Amino acid sequence: MPTDSRPSPADLLAQVRKMDTPFSRYLGIELLEVTPDLVRAELPVRDELSTAPHAMHGGAIMAFADNLGAIATVVNLPPGAGTTTIESKTNFIAAVPPGQKAIGETTPLHKGRTTMVWQTRISREDGRLAAIVTQTQMVLPGKAA
Amino acid sequence: MPTDSRPSPADLLAQVRKMDTPFSRYLGIELLEVTPDLVRAELPVRDELSTAPHAMHGGAIMAFADNLGAIATVVNLPPGAGTTTIESKTNFIAAVPPGQKAIGETTPLHKGRTTMVWQTRISREDGRLAAIVTQTQMVLPGKAA
Amino acid sequence: MPTDSRPSPADLLAQVRKMDTPFSRYLGIELLEVTPDLVRAELPVRDELSTAPHAMHGGAIMAFADNLGAIATVVNLPPGAGTTTIESKTNFIAAVPPGQKAIGETTPLHKGRTTMVWQTRISREDGRLAAIVTQTQMVLPGKAA
Amino acid sequence: MPTDSRPSPADLLAQVRKMDTPFSRYLGIELLEVTPDLVRAELPVRDELSTAPHAMHGGAIMAFADNLGAIATVVNLPPGAGTTTIESKTNFIAAVPPGQKAIGETTPLHKGRTTMVWQTRISREDGRLAAIVTQTQMVLPGKAA
Repeated sequence: MPTDSRPSPADLLAQVRKMDTPFSRYLGIELLEVTPDLVRAELPVRDELSTAPHAMHGGAIMAFADNLGAIATVVNLPPGAGTTTIESKTNFIAAVPPGQKAIGETTPLHKGRTTMVWQTRISREDGRLAAIVTQTQMVLPGKAA
Repeated sequence: MPTDSRPSPADLLAQVRKMDTPFSRYLGIELLEVTPDLVRAELPVRDELSTAPHAMHGGAIMAFADNLGAIATVVNLPPGAGTTTIESKTNFIAAVPPGQKAIGETTPLHKGRTTMVWQTRISREDGRLAAIVTQTQMVLPGKAA
Repeated sequence: MPTDSRPSPADLLAQVRKMDTPFSRYLGIELLEVTPDLVRAELPVRDELSTAPHAMHGGAIMAFADNLGAIATVVNLPPGAGTTTIESKTNFIAAVPPGQKAIGETTPLHKGRTTMVWQTRISREDGRLAAIVTQTQMVLPGKAA
Repeated sequence: MPTDSRPSPADLLAQVRKMDTPFSRYLGIELLEVTPDLVRAELPVRDELSTAPHAMHGGAIMAFADNLGAIATVVNLPPGAGTTTIESKTNFIAAVPPGQKAIGETTPLHKGRTTMVWQTRISREDGRLAAIVTQTQMVLPGKAA
């Protein structure tokens, strides 16, 4: 694939928005920026994503990050290939209060032919690190490679 | 706490149902059994929890498990204490098709005074292992211990 | 590979012993049993594997488990294939006192064509769980498959 | 503890060298720099730390990182407190050839009163990332706080 056929950032964002999953819409993830080395998004912490009145649910944090890691992989796949998450690990550092937005930023640790490893920082609006997620995506070869 | 003041399984289930979080309701988790050494629940894989037409979203799987590990901890807490997830790791083994139910079963690896470690098996209706989640819960001492 | 060409347990153990790594010998791992669904081994906690006078070093525990997961994979590989660990996660539950033996038991969570997932329980002589390790092994296709 | 009682970098390094464990000496870890926000060290990949002729053993990589995370915690503990690793997760990215040195750099994700979370990058001499380790250390309060 010649380099100049690479889609522009706006094209990438548009393309990824078309592929977004029912679950990412159900969560309410809003993509802000998509490049081969950075996916950035926000997730407003509505009541439905929280633990009673206290904080964004840890499960919502992991689900947010999982979406971003998958998108980051898709952007880097060869034509026709797919991806699936094979493992994901989260450390929870600080609570995200409801009413705030969680900000997710995904960057690569490894972009290989068979696996990619992504790290996602979930931050609060005040910039404090809320959670860090490291996940491995398997690259599934296309049928008609 | 004398042993005979332990709530019955039905009491535990009723008590835990009252505490369930907005996020667990949003996902649609249905608790089946809650004891100090087992939490069992189902989650019907509605479209909103899936990746397009293909499978239950990995993020929904992790969120399901996180809820069960938190409930399992709550059932074992001393009076007044709370809990928060400090880390969670998932291996994804097989896809759960939409329309099916995912079944979660959480059992203890460690029930200590400062941390508890739980393992949750997420299975498909055909009994195949779909994912395995290991998570650490911090025990937060009660204000009026 | 026809089923009846499967090596016997004694053959497997002998074969795996020949392949053992310089690092597993340096640690002092003693294989007890090797089958396609179980690897069992001991590791005497000599001073060199401990944190001062207190306990078996967490790093030695992880290294012990990593060896067992790799062996378990090798036993299940098709001819000519290799393997490498792509990720490993450990929860530490209880200390293993020096002078004791740590016992490791590795069982499969998944044996697939591209990845295998193994769980290793590290126990103390008194049977108490000391650590639990979950690791993913990549299957590397043989040159001349 | 007033800030001006903080030990100098050279003092920290000397103090940490005195505390090093039998296992870290057995591995051959050489500390290069120890500050409250960075621990840097090298580990020459001798034959004993490798998988046959191929590469540094994954278990040796995890053990190397575990040592650095523990040291990083010790440097940040209040007087009299101790620490233990409660969980550790490693993603393996690239092999470290024998004869080379592995370089480890540990930086904080979280330095709290009850837990600290550290991330260690293990790199090869050519600067390529070989593995990334995230670990949680429990802070054990001193007897005479």
